[in-house]
Amino acid sequence: MKKTVFILVGATGDLATRKLYPALFDNFIDNHLPEDFVLLGLGRKPLTESEYKVSLQDSLTSFKSDQVMDFVSKSHYRVADYANNTCIAHILEEFDLQEGDNLVWYMAVPPQAFRQVIECVKTVKTTMPKIHSRMVIEKPFGTDLSSAQDLNSFLRESFHEDEVYRIDHYLGKETVQNILALRFGNSIFEPVLNNRYVESIEISVMEELGVEGRADYFDNTGIIKDILQNHILQVMALVMMDAPARMEAEFIRDEKYKILRTLRPIDCSEVILGQYQANPDKNLIGYLQEPGVDPQSKTETYVAMTSYVDNLRWEGVPVYIKTGKRMPEKKAEIRIVFKPSFKYFMHQDNECNPQKNELVIQIQPNEQVYAQVNAKLPGKGMCIQPVQLHFSYQDGFEVRTKDAYTRLLKDAIDGDQ
Amino acid sequence: MKKTVFILVGATGDLATRKLYPALFDNFIDNHLPEDFVLLGLGRKPLTESEYKVSLQDSLTSFKSDQVMDFVSKSHYRVADYANNTCIAHILEEFDLQEGDNLVWYMAVPPQAFRQVIECVKTVKTTMPKIHSRMVIEKPFGTDLSSAQDLNSFLRESFHEDEVYRIDHYLGKETVQNILALRFGNSIFEPVLNNRYVESIEISVMEELGVEGRADYFDNTGIIKDILQNHILQVMALVMMDAPARMEAEFIRDEKYKILRTLRPIDCSEVILGQYQANPDKNLIGYLQEPGVDPQSKTETYVAMTSYVDNLRWEGVPVYIKTGKRMPEKKAEIRIVFKPSFKYFMHQDNECNPQKNELVIQIQPNEQVYAQVNAKLPGKGMCIQPVQLHFSYQDGFEVRTKDAYTRLLKDAIDGDQ
Repeated sequence: MKKTVFILVGATGDLATRKLYPALFDNFIDNHLPEDFVLLGLGRKPLTESEYKVSLQDSLTSFKSDQVMDFVSKSHYRVADYANNTCIAHILEEFDLQEGDNLVWYMAVPPQAFRQVIECVKTVKTTMPKIHSRMVIEKPFGTDLSSAQDLNSFLRESFHEDEVYRIDHYLGKETVQNILALRFGNSIFEPVLNNRYVESIEISVMEELGVEGRADYFDNTGIIKDILQNHILQVMALVMMDAPARMEAEFIRDEKYKILRTLRPIDCSEVILGQYQANPDKNLIGYLQEPGVDPQSKTETYVAMTSYVDNLRWEGVPVYIKTGKRMPEKKAEIRIVFKPSFKYFMHQDNECNPQKNELVIQIQPNEQVYAQVNAKLPGKGMCIQPVQLHFSYQDGFEVRTKDAYTRLLKDAIDGDQ
Repeated sequence: MKKTVFILVGATGDLATRKLYPALFDNFIDNHLPEDFVLLGLGRKPLTESEYKVSLQDSLTSFKSDQVMDFVSKSHYRVADYANNTCIAHILEEFDLQEGDNLVWYMAVPPQAFRQVIECVKTVKTTMPKIHSRMVIEKPFGTDLSSAQDLNSFLRESFHEDEVYRIDHYLGKETVQNILALRFGNSIFEPVLNNRYVESIEISVMEELGVEGRADYFDNTGIIKDILQNHILQVMALVMMDAPARMEAEFIRDEKYKILRTLRPIDCSEVILGQYQANPDKNLIGYLQEPGVDPQSKTETYVAMTSYVDNLRWEGVPVYIKTGKRMPEKKAEIRIVFKPSFKYFMHQDNECNPQKNELVIQIQPNEQVYAQVNAKLPGKGMCIQPVQLHFSYQDGFEVRTKDAYTRLLKDAIDGDQ
């Protein structure tokens, strides 16, 4: 039987503990992991394997499951010195890998460590050429165009494109994945998703929290790179792309690429940037007072801009993009606003308050989809009012909605890009 | 102040007691009746006015309202002999009518009495030419084409077209009235309501009851004339008509007429007719055993047929029409079924069960509107399943949904055809 070794590089970090172990375990209890599955944690921290197992167990306490020990028994931990590019290859020698076994590498290390780790993985690929490897990398994927291109070239020296999984956990969220299902699994939405019917598209990702201890990372990044350039552009491409030839990774990527290629260049003078201020009423400090933030920092915590996709389908439809930290509420949604069509009903009494049709895909705080349409207010006259045709994931499916990482790790393990 | 006299011809009958008095009272408590409103009941039954007022009061007990006596105080009753065409004119002399006052005639008498009553009303119109009259007639409006044309010509001798209210209580139901609001108060439905996207339309009106004491009427009528020719054709016209020039009676009628004019002639050999049989398990007798039904009757209690509207918009879209008595459940709905669009998702595992998109306007048992669309089943893979985007009148509006008659009488009193 072929072995699958999930190699978590950065096994003691925050992402691993908070998200990745629970996601792997979630797949484990659903029998979604391969039978001969091994979890190998690598880290610089000098833990013993049993210390690691205890901390792994701790990260799964919320499951209250009697399968935790089964899962933990499949795990191993090794201290790795990534500066030595043979170190991981040495570690793997213990694991008795055979031709055809799969290695899934997950880079849960800071981006500064990417290159060192990838060098180590290259050595593994060279010394064990019959072993399949997949490389999972999450953002930040470089810090600008040239560093992203560099990282890409560097990866491509040792990996084929179909071995590289550049993941964005946002895209693992059910409502985001549902965009494709809604658009291409139904016949009633596509006909109106174009500039003849759509007036505007709003994509907003509002966070109620501030930088919350990530000041060091955030102050060097800013919200454009933290949220807009990745999550929002990806979501925008999913909402606006043409139908792919097939519902497969390569074709979907091609269509997303077409959208990104037709994005109108941004005029920087029209981009609104902001930093959150202190709010003494709520006992909240401002961004520049956050520990770890340079008091002179010009890093943006808020951005609003209007974007256009200059293709045949979307020409002239503004896409309003907004994202910020420390906003009044936590809310992430895509709002497709349709041109109004209710002049018929507007000459009537003033109580009438029809609204534009909207198709809203809400990602946070609740994963839900609703259409806002106008319906007749019961009673005399022909007064129309907005109502919501509503579908909520929590109510609609008996299946528990999993964390985005659960889905993404499963896809990576299954080799589904 | 101008007086409005609502003259209920057939004031002691079943329709008056069950539906019309409650509907008038419902408008009364909502302050929807004109200030100087008078209810004049006419009937052949030799009741005194106080006997009538007691029975009127009885018909309103379900309201538990302290305004019942106020309303009853506005009512009068007179015995009328319709065979004498001056009789109603004589009665009205008592009511001190002035120029500009309004008479709203409601024909709650059997169709055989229509002509006699209309002769009486004609005399009123001749002797009191400065008094406005409106004539409200409910189906059956004749029994076939020529008798309907006769009745129409007869009415037109004394009434202008805008004084005649041929009402169909079905069209007063909120969900039916909502068809126009949904279609023309929104921009997302009209683009897909045509033969490019719609595969079929189903209109069904299923009754759980049998003839229930209306055997005499029903056995001479049949369900085609009782339900299909009026309610269903009207609903079908509302669903399929083009946009009217304005949301006004005359323009809406013109558009409905265009649909009826383009109905493909029915091939009688393709119409399915049926009669309900006894169901001993449920202790239900068959149609031919119903008291009052001719044991040799060939009157249909069920009809199913496929209709087509041969115009540019609907060419090739079958309209499946079904209506019957003593069906398994009480259900009336319009179901617009869209062409499928989910081949993308069909190669996947067998658990996937996408369904065609549907827009369902349910009239009974609940007034509700929902769109059936496919959404991604949470979890791994891209499996899509139908979900309902749902709006219910009961939940959606705080306003109580009134009986259809409440709305229709209000419109007639307001002069809104």
